[in-house]
Amino acid sequence: MLLLNRKEIELCFSMRDAIESVETAFIENLKGNVESPLRTVILTSGGNFLFMPAYMEAKGYAILKAVNIFPGNFDKHLPTAPSSLILFDGKTGIPLAYLDGTYVTQLRTGGATGAALRRLARKDARIAAMIGSGGQAETQIKAILTVRKIEEIHIADVALERAEALTQKMQNSFPNIKFLAFSDSNAAITDVDIIATATSSKKPTFSADCIKPGVTISAVGAYRPDMQEIDPKLVKMVDKIFCDSKEAVLKEAGDIMIPLQEGLISEDNLVDLAQVLMGKMDGRTSAEQNLLFETVGFAAEDIMTAAAIYERAKAKGCGTAWE
Amino acid sequence: MLLLNRKEIELCFSMRDAIESVETAFIENLKGNVESPLRTVILTSGGNFLFMPAYMEAKGYAILKAVNIFPGNFDKHLPTAPSSLILFDGKTGIPLAYLDGTYVTQLRTGGATGAALRRLARKDARIAAMIGSGGQAETQIKAILTVRKIEEIHIADVALERAEALTQKMQNSFPNIKFLAFSDSNAAITDVDIIATATSSKKPTFSADCIKPGVTISAVGAYRPDMQEIDPKLVKMVDKIFCDSKEAVLKEAGDIMIPLQEGLISEDNLVDLAQVLMGKMDGRTSAEQNLLFETVGFAAEDIMTAAAIYERAKAKGCGTAWE
Repeated sequence: MLLLNRKEIELCFSMRDAIESVETAFIENLKGNVESPLRTVILTSGGNFLFMPAYMEAKGYAILKAVNIFPGNFDKHLPTAPSSLILFDGKTGIPLAYLDGTYVTQLRTGGATGAALRRLARKDARIAAMIGSGGQAETQIKAILTVRKIEEIHIADVALERAEALTQKMQNSFPNIKFLAFSDSNAAITDVDIIATATSSKKPTFSADCIKPGVTISAVGAYRPDMQEIDPKLVKMVDKIFCDSKEAVLKEAGDIMIPLQEGLISEDNLVDLAQVLMGKMDGRTSAEQNLLFETVGFAAEDIMTAAAIYERAKAKGCGTAWE
Repeated sequence: MLLLNRKEIELCFSMRDAIESVETAFIENLKGNVESPLRTVILTSGGNFLFMPAYMEAKGYAILKAVNIFPGNFDKHLPTAPSSLILFDGKTGIPLAYLDGTYVTQLRTGGATGAALRRLARKDARIAAMIGSGGQAETQIKAILTVRKIEEIHIADVALERAEALTQKMQNSFPNIKFLAFSDSNAAITDVDIIATATSSKKPTFSADCIKPGVTISAVGAYRPDMQEIDPKLVKMVDKIFCDSKEAVLKEAGDIMIPLQEGLISEDNLVDLAQVLMGKMDGRTSAEQNLLFETVGFAAEDIMTAAAIYERAKAKGCGTAWE
């Protein structure tokens, strides 16, 4: 079997590859071609084990992803959500690859934002803002840079030193882009064309009043009903709300569930991004539209991304063969 | 994390180690110290994916074991039940080791037979029989050889060429023991002191009339209600029936469930082997007793065995470090 750690994946798999995998995942998921049984949760005093299986007959793969949420790891200088992913051959059950699940998740979450912005962001987008500087921020930024010719990126975090650290890191990786750190999200998003939010916030991270018309927002963080990154006023204000999966968003995303409960929007405001990807529905139709993409993430993204990484790694001779 | 394939495990972990791990597992399981959520099954046209998690707070470990049953692999010269096992730190969720799940399963299944025979078999046992020459047979034989001074082992399989192949292999590994191949199980078990059965049979593999008094049987194969290796007449005839877990055996083992339904035995005939291991109950009390050990296997065995292998490998510097 093939072992693929973060560095090995980085060598063979680009953000553009991730975006393409996730686009396929969105379409296959909408078509019902993914089997993802209920995840198993083991609650412990120190944290929770989450085990998530999935299977795609048409693509010939199954996966088993473990994401273990242990907040106390932060103080031990250990990852707070270590993740492992095994990819299996769907026709023989043989394990094909063991992948760094944390990085696969970051890649596919970036891929989701990339897939959305590619269709929804203004073609002339020039400035972007990243709200949150945690584990998902880097691939969000890479996704933005992959799909639009961006000149300037604002990185905002309530902990300014974290925003500054990521700003420095990103500046080193992309010397031609101007990166700026902010502690005030409202200041960070004024005059930007694209906003990505990846926080664990339970209240809106910026005010609807501060946006620049024509903005496109990718909201990544609110994967539970009690989580909320986007101002309900903005959710009501945008021209359209695109979802990675309308069905999942209605069950999981506080960003949408809360304004729905408050009667600010109706379910009719929501569409599956896959409809746009399949050419059955329009994305952005004018430069002035404000558009929101809401994503909670699901197994199809993991399975398609892991499979694509594996196939790419095999073709390029990347990774470590074992056994 | 540490990668441990079959050869690396063999280097650092003996059958005696496996027996000790499984003894602990039996006791911890009876005490209710193991959390094992319902396994997840994904049914496909070619086979089934089985994903089995477990957690032991007291020991500080969790595992995720995948066993994928694909019978058609036989014709492709691939393993028919490939298995992977990830061991996690129970306090941080960090993956510690990736192990060859097939071999861990074989080791702990051998360990179960060893744990039972150590307490139940006649001390002067000299001849043993192995019914079935499939994937579990080798560790069953090693377990028997570990706990008693055996001089002769009969290996029986309805497919004689498979029995002969295993006989040859075992003879090469243990030149001081006499191995004989049989196609007729009844002939193989006459005059033996110990019988281990590890088949997928749905009907009794040998006749109660052919046993030698004082025999001890370890029945490993019948892990489903429709499976049966042991003659119901023999189940009724034995002095006592020991179980790896009485609770599990009553729900899963055809060997016991069928005679129970037929009114041949009552639940009172069953005891947990752990009671003997803890010194709360006698094992064999006379040379003439016929004793049966029925095992279906459970997560506690996997977790204790995987954890012991990991600890041993770390201490001895075995395995492949990765990442």
